[in-house]
Amino acid sequence: MSQAPHVEHDAPGVQPGSTPAAEPGAPATAPAGGGASIADTTELLALVAQIESVAFLRIAGAATAAPDPLSRLRLARLAGAALARQETILGRIAELEGDTDAADELMLGLDATFDDYDQRTQPSSWWEEILKSYVGHGVAVDFCRIVAGALDPQSREIIMGVIEDGMASERSIEVLDRATTDDEVLASRLALWGRRLVGEALSLVQSLLADRPSLSRLLATAIDQRFSEDERPADHTSWLFGQLTAEHTRRMGRLGLAA
Amino acid sequence: MSQAPHVEHDAPGVQPGSTPAAEPGAPATAPAGGGASIADTTELLALVAQIESVAFLRIAGAATAAPDPLSRLRLARLAGAALARQETILGRIAELEGDTDAADELMLGLDATFDDYDQRTQPSSWWEEILKSYVGHGVAVDFCRIVAGALDPQSREIIMGVIEDGMASERSIEVLDRATTDDEVLASRLALWGRRLVGEALSLVQSLLADRPSLSRLLATAIDQRFSEDERPADHTSWLFGQLTAEHTRRMGRLGLAA
Repeated sequence: MSQAPHVEHDAPGVQPGSTPAAEPGAPATAPAGGGASIADTTELLALVAQIESVAFLRIAGAATAAPDPLSRLRLARLAGAALARQETILGRIAELEGDTDAADELMLGLDATFDDYDQRTQPSSWWEEILKSYVGHGVAVDFCRIVAGALDPQSREIIMGVIEDGMASERSIEVLDRATTDDEVLASRLALWGRRLVGEALSLVQSLLADRPSLSRLLATAIDQRFSEDERPADHTSWLFGQLTAEHTRRMGRLGLAA
Repeated sequence: MSQAPHVEHDAPGVQPGSTPAAEPGAPATAPAGGGASIADTTELLALVAQIESVAFLRIAGAATAAPDPLSRLRLARLAGAALARQETILGRIAELEGDTDAADELMLGLDATFDDYDQRTQPSSWWEEILKSYVGHGVAVDFCRIVAGALDPQSREIIMGVIEDGMASERSIEVLDRATTDDEVLASRLALWGRRLVGEALSLVQSLLADRPSLSRLLATAIDQRFSEDERPADHTSWLFGQLTAEHTRRMGRLGLAA
């Protein structure tokens, strides 16, 4: 696949199990500056890459079905941008693991992550589909942002850059805001759909944390680093869900919809 | 569409109708080193961009329908590479025209170019579809390569790079070669399909030359530059069709199929 617009790696060939080095940026079991191990770090990175891979397929599919050439071109570019973000993340994994194929494999291993969520949230209209991307992507991104607090500065920065880029390209908010302002029935129907979506998204986060110890460890480390000892929440999951729910409420508010 | 992985332009703001400059690489009505005007040059560039845009949609569509995650990832990357080639070409147009939107518009104006050909060559099997890409892309690329002889060196180089990249990613030849070696009935059916395809592809070239005077002028200039006066073919279209047919025959031969 030499034709792929793949990120160039000048990874120093990190050996799994090599002893931690003191110099910043040096290859080590835990990348310098973060509390997380390389294995936990790359698992979160792979999850973000998978989110972008799903976004690519969704937008590319919309491009092939676009009603006019200009929309097709715009969607093609948005799809290309999602793919480029996926490749940036995979590039960081390859740097940490010293192996490009390992990065691909880690992401491919997460391929079925969103299948169940997708099954349970089949949109019945175009509006519902748009709101689904907005809500689902929003929760996914908030989760990754919080957990990324445990990573080394470089990995964290890459994830934050990818997230901000991706959010800026979510134009859905404009069309949704306009449509719901004019149509109260649509607004209340979508508000209901939004509650359904966030419920399913939070269950997905819950099962991810249950199935993937790496993510629970990252969450614990991120909370440790965020709070002083006496302010630290006792129940990590409840605290996380409080955060995710609050962000979701803010997002729905921006659309003029009740959360 | 600020999210697009768009080529950066540092075009010096070429004004249409500015006087030709003598320095190599300087903005001018005719780019230095080629016989073609900017308008003719950008029309050919837009055609190549449109070919890549069609390739992106075809491969991205195949990615969304891929049977397994690894094929999906590979196809996503091939689609991304086609999109990147489209953007490289559009970048050159924007450099020559001094305007990014003009580049998009030129390509969008060619949006329907392949519709008629596609209608007339609906594949009835997966093998026919693969052969269609191989034959259709092959003729399109040979045409652009010949006509690109009229362009300034930089535009020509960009087109040749894009063409070579695109051809290298056509893996179709391997699967087709293997399949037809084992199956004589398939081989003779595909040989017939190949003749149908090349016939339709040559008609498309003919109507392009009839409808777009810029392409005829480029062909004439390319022939002028290629041959000394006494060797020059009198009938440009016949000479071109001879070239395209010979290349097609070579390509079919590589598959072990009679042209």
